[in-house]
Amino acid sequence: MVNIQQEQSKEDDLQIDVNCDLGEGFGIYTAGLDRDVMPHITSANVACGWHAGDPAVMKATVKMASKFKVRVGAHPGYPDLMGFGRREMNCSPGDLESYILYQVGALQAFCRSQNVKMQHVKPHGALYHAVLADPELGGALARAVQKADPELILLTLSGPKGNVMAGICEELGLRVAREAFPDRAYNRDGTLVARDLPGAVLEDPEQVAKRALSMARDGTALTPDGESVTIEAQTLCVHGDSPAAVESVRAIGHILEQSNIRLVALQELLK
Amino acid sequence: MVNIQQEQSKEDDLQIDVNCDLGEGFGIYTAGLDRDVMPHITSANVACGWHAGDPAVMKATVKMASKFKVRVGAHPGYPDLMGFGRREMNCSPGDLESYILYQVGALQAFCRSQNVKMQHVKPHGALYHAVLADPELGGALARAVQKADPELILLTLSGPKGNVMAGICEELGLRVAREAFPDRAYNRDGTLVARDLPGAVLEDPEQVAKRALSMARDGTALTPDGESVTIEAQTLCVHGDSPAAVESVRAIGHILEQSNIRLVALQELLK
Amino acid sequence: MVNIQQEQSKEDDLQIDVNCDLGEGFGIYTAGLDRDVMPHITSANVACGWHAGDPAVMKATVKMASKFKVRVGAHPGYPDLMGFGRREMNCSPGDLESYILYQVGALQAFCRSQNVKMQHVKPHGALYHAVLADPELGGALARAVQKADPELILLTLSGPKGNVMAGICEELGLRVAREAFPDRAYNRDGTLVARDLPGAVLEDPEQVAKRALSMARDGTALTPDGESVTIEAQTLCVHGDSPAAVESVRAIGHILEQSNIRLVALQELLK
Amino acid sequence: MVNIQQEQSKEDDLQIDVNCDLGEGFGIYTAGLDRDVMPHITSANVACGWHAGDPAVMKATVKMASKFKVRVGAHPGYPDLMGFGRREMNCSPGDLESYILYQVGALQAFCRSQNVKMQHVKPHGALYHAVLADPELGGALARAVQKADPELILLTLSGPKGNVMAGICEELGLRVAREAFPDRAYNRDGTLVARDLPGAVLEDPEQVAKRALSMARDGTALTPDGESVTIEAQTLCVHGDSPAAVESVRAIGHILEQSNIRLVALQELLK
Repeated sequence: MVNIQQEQSKEDDLQIDVNCDLGEGFGIYTAGLDRDVMPHITSANVACGWHAGDPAVMKATVKMASKFKVRVGAHPGYPDLMGFGRREMNCSPGDLESYILYQVGALQAFCRSQNVKMQHVKPHGALYHAVLADPELGGALARAVQKADPELILLTLSGPKGNVMAGICEELGLRVAREAFPDRAYNRDGTLVARDLPGAVLEDPEQVAKRALSMARDGTALTPDGESVTIEAQTLCVHGDSPAAVESVRAIGHILEQSNIRLVALQELLK
Repeated sequence: MVNIQQEQSKEDDLQIDVNCDLGEGFGIYTAGLDRDVMPHITSANVACGWHAGDPAVMKATVKMASKFKVRVGAHPGYPDLMGFGRREMNCSPGDLESYILYQVGALQAFCRSQNVKMQHVKPHGALYHAVLADPELGGALARAVQKADPELILLTLSGPKGNVMAGICEELGLRVAREAFPDRAYNRDGTLVARDLPGAVLEDPEQVAKRALSMARDGTALTPDGESVTIEAQTLCVHGDSPAAVESVRAIGHILEQSNIRLVALQELLK
Repeated sequence: MVNIQQEQSKEDDLQIDVNCDLGEGFGIYTAGLDRDVMPHITSANVACGWHAGDPAVMKATVKMASKFKVRVGAHPGYPDLMGFGRREMNCSPGDLESYILYQVGALQAFCRSQNVKMQHVKPHGALYHAVLADPELGGALARAVQKADPELILLTLSGPKGNVMAGICEELGLRVAREAFPDRAYNRDGTLVARDLPGAVLEDPEQVAKRALSMARDGTALTPDGESVTIEAQTLCVHGDSPAAVESVRAIGHILEQSNIRLVALQELLK
Repeated sequence: MVNIQQEQSKEDDLQIDVNCDLGEGFGIYTAGLDRDVMPHITSANVACGWHAGDPAVMKATVKMASKFKVRVGAHPGYPDLMGFGRREMNCSPGDLESYILYQVGALQAFCRSQNVKMQHVKPHGALYHAVLADPELGGALARAVQKADPELILLTLSGPKGNVMAGICEELGLRVAREAFPDRAYNRDGTLVARDLPGAVLEDPEQVAKRALSMARDGTALTPDGESVTIEAQTLCVHGDSPAAVESVRAIGHILEQSNIRLVALQELLK
């Protein structure tokens, strides 16, 4: 009985953040089912006008997040709207630092004007990967975030690739959060299985939800062979770019709730 | 004798701000002789990346201004790099408010990261004129500035056209500063003589400097006929886009110094 | 009987072009149900990368049009992706001429590379209206089209506003086609009823189709009061930006077919 | 005597093309001393609006080239104005082909409208290097050029890196020209010495001119150690971005003239 109670109480304490890229429309163009995702997430990564998003979209997205009590983060990307920031651009660390500061600053203005405190920064697309692959770019990102606001949390990948980034942040005294992907298979070393390999990307909402639960409750992901891999993550990354993706988000919300795992924004989680 | 002394002491108290558009380069392109102008001005209007300027230029311009103890303001413009923001774009007030908030926010990040407090906002080019011509757009500008930081000063035109804008600001509790152009002739009603009319634009540095002195000391400008017109301005707008313009800036600095008129940034002037 | 036969044979000869704006996606963004509209139109106005469209979209749109035997035209717009080219930009005639030549030339390359002969040019959005309102801009458009290829047809509005534009084209020896809008009500003078007035825009597919028939068969449009107005148009403008719009396009195709009015591209129509 | 006469007559036959990047201004921004370079070159690589150049600049540059009887080529680049097309962007071959076709087509319109036949295409900056490093991208470039106009000449690097590109062109039946850089030192294998190595870049106009002469007359370049390397090039690349660069261009023109080497555009050279 004691054990069971302990287990119970431990489970009661379990909590995790769920983050999603939002505000990716531009001008007349819409992208993503932001409204459908909002009720099920705790942290929104808001595009800042370079790879996606425009000032009107940014304003509306901060407003919507605020209404749903979702914390707002900046989601800066490369200056490549035509490629949606998904193409590596080989910027110098100095330029990159300025690019990130610019975009974060722009979103901060929309946050401040709506009495919202920006919570975090998560780089987008090719920039997300570039800062993991090159510590100089990682340093540029971390410095930009710290200069924008030293209380911001930098969101990066869990596993070995994110360790370097996390180390850079810790050295600067910058808080860092690690994310895991419930719709992805992992290699034994904690890295993501490359997208083009079989079994790398899951689409079945129930399966995705089960993986989210393992990640949140047990700190484990699965390899394509069904092996369990330890994953340290404070936040789960979900997608809202298709009705199917939204179904997965709902399934994740449902299974976490059923399992008494509280959805808590990074700001509270990292206190 | 008493009178003379009073006169003297009054002149000792005379002070004015001098503002200039700076940071108008982009990528490999340079524009303006920023370094030459900096020693002679008190307020810099820094382009924010839409009609001119890029993040690297913004960072460098804030740094240079800081070094010369020049106050920094945002100089937002229309999203029209190809037209340098000089073409009216017919944006809705709602879009305009977001566009200005975006640009001001971006520059604020560069200011904060260099421990600089942004002083003011001056709209650029066609946007400068649009907010004067349409009170709805004027209201959008004023609200954007206030939302970005209620302590910011909005810089607008002196004379009747700026009165509406100033009224809008006062209603919002936003501080406003009025500018005069030493290189321009004025109509009797205090409006600028249209650029394409004879005598509208002065190029001789000495003449420009004399007008700057009249504006700063007597609060008067001249019509093309040489008539004196009352102008209420807290700041003089100068240009740094050509060697000839820089000569005028130097001449203005020289004549004001000789006349014991102190160059004081708006921040101190409006206290 | 003779009369009836004559009537019949006259109706057999009736023919009209149907044009639609297509290729308005950009990067990851989609816009318009191009595939659904293609079977029912004869002329496609393809965006050229400034207000919408990108090179990959342009290539794909020319290919799709070619497959459906739809004639291709260029649909140049203002350099304002964020505003979808719907905001007046106050460009000089000289700049405008170069802007149009640039965009038409870019699309011509995609046409040539697919053995397609570009048929026409139709300006987009605010540019469409600007060239109607200002003959200097109209002249710039006509010259650009002629320089790009003197065999191109310039597509403009029917009614008095288009008369000036048509006159400019005729003076240059440039072919012109006039368009009518089946989903719009007309004023007695042949101008469009402003969008924000009651009854200005029709949404019921059957009603829209009936008006299309009147335009094609009788050369008449309707006022909001149901009065008949003479309209001279060689092409009907339809929309593919929503499922409802596509329904109207289908209904128009159906009613024209039933009435033995052949859909014929401008190229053949103006021979 | 016979020998001398033969030598003489052989020298009389010597000819080479000189190419330069031009038309790199944008909006209010100027770049390059185009006017000063024009009298000394035979082929102009004209920026097409993506990494530099705008429609007004393109029109003016074609006009200026035409006046100086300089042949016009397209100089397409990555969609990165802020980085002047100097940053690798990792585009897919399919996208790249469309990007190049778009830019070449746009410039072709300005050529046709001025009765100029476009002579060649030379990729710019990071794109220049990307097509040399990746044959898939090289193929995309070659196909785009051929689709734009099969009579165009593709301009690429001399030496082993350009051999692959040249092979791709030959397979398509596309003419190719190879360029050498008089202001650069070469490795023994005919590749350029990396810019950051000592002796890689020459600045003295006389020295640059001497190397140009060796390239044009003897088909040789020099290593940093002064060794002679065989270089096969039909065109010499010169620069007009600074007064010093223009001095070198003049010196090259002078020495070639003195040595009876005729400056002849690629179009004539490759006949």
